[in-house]
Amino acid sequence: MQNHKLTRQIQFIIEIDKLKSILRQTLLTDGSRQENSAEHSWHLAMMAIVLAEYAPPNVDMLRVIKMLLLHDIVEIDAGDTFCYDITGNQDKAERELLAAQRIFALLPVEQGAELRALWEEFEAHSTASAKWARALDCLQPLLNNQQTQGHTWRLHGVTRSQVLHRMRAVEKGAPALWPLVEQIIEDCVAAGYLKVEPEISSA
Amino acid sequence: MQNHKLTRQIQFIIEIDKLKSILRQTLLTDGSRQENSAEHSWHLAMMAIVLAEYAPPNVDMLRVIKMLLLHDIVEIDAGDTFCYDITGNQDKAERELLAAQRIFALLPVEQGAELRALWEEFEAHSTASAKWARALDCLQPLLNNQQTQGHTWRLHGVTRSQVLHRMRAVEKGAPALWPLVEQIIEDCVAAGYLKVEPEISSA
Repeated sequence: MQNHKLTRQIQFIIEIDKLKSILRQTLLTDGSRQENSAEHSWHLAMMAIVLAEYAPPNVDMLRVIKMLLLHDIVEIDAGDTFCYDITGNQDKAERELLAAQRIFALLPVEQGAELRALWEEFEAHSTASAKWARALDCLQPLLNNQQTQGHTWRLHGVTRSQVLHRMRAVEKGAPALWPLVEQIIEDCVAAGYLKVEPEISSA
Repeated sequence: MQNHKLTRQIQFIIEIDKLKSILRQTLLTDGSRQENSAEHSWHLAMMAIVLAEYAPPNVDMLRVIKMLLLHDIVEIDAGDTFCYDITGNQDKAERELLAAQRIFALLPVEQGAELRALWEEFEAHSTASAKWARALDCLQPLLNNQQTQGHTWRLHGVTRSQVLHRMRAVEKGAPALWPLVEQIIEDCVAAGYLKVEPEISSA
């Protein structure tokens, strides 16, 4: 292969195969095994296509899909950090920054910078597109937990108010989907998949 | 949930989770297990982003990514058919047609028709975008087989001329990547990953 640029691009493509081995806390909807971050990213991109009509104005679908496809590749080095894991989230940003430095640098310089900027945009939720992408990234595990009778919530003792807090990203980035989220949470509480924290007495 | 349209879209999103359990013949590049069709589709969409500069004129990147993300969802019902399996390929089209009828019909009518048309465009390789998408769908398993020392080829006794024949889709849909494909095939033959068929005597 004479084309040095193409060689680097192919090496990047081979490298990211490793995302298929990064396991998340969620199970597949049939409960058979943990989901990995590559198939999760595929699912999010499909959601961006199917739910496009609910996106707020100024959302750029191609940009969103690119963000969703690449938003987790830093996990190849940094691993998946469970969203309710307080300790793991303390050094998540640092671990992911180091990962981004290594992984995007596999690409030709200009292209690596372009894809890294997309990842940074997603992480900062600095645009309507990034906020919409983030909302889908929250909605998918919610659907997944509903389908698996609250598997991840029960495993980690996650409560309704924690889920509601986390799902505020949907309210911000995908307001048209917020009633759906509220309904799913109430259905999950009613079904016993998600527990409500005991009320704290104000006395 | 009051919105009947959204209910159908969410049901479709939940249904396609099953693609994560459809196994392909190829292994992950680390050889640890078979690849599934959802993560394969993610990988192809990433390739469409990274290799965009090599796409022929008239290729629409968003259209290509959509095709690649959904091209395998018929396998939820029809299963993955190994490309060198002659018997399996005899009724592949019929099985996939039935699958398309069921799966795309889960969506609201207009949207189901739109996504199905994209799948049909991919299957017919009737446009520059579909030909490019098809080329990427051939290139990815080639890279994969190279990384796994020809695992799938050795398992099924696939030869150099069979691979070359199959890779003609790259020559047609992605001529700028054809020299890369020829080089990989020769490297795989030299490394002993891919066998050359014995020459047939013309006597």
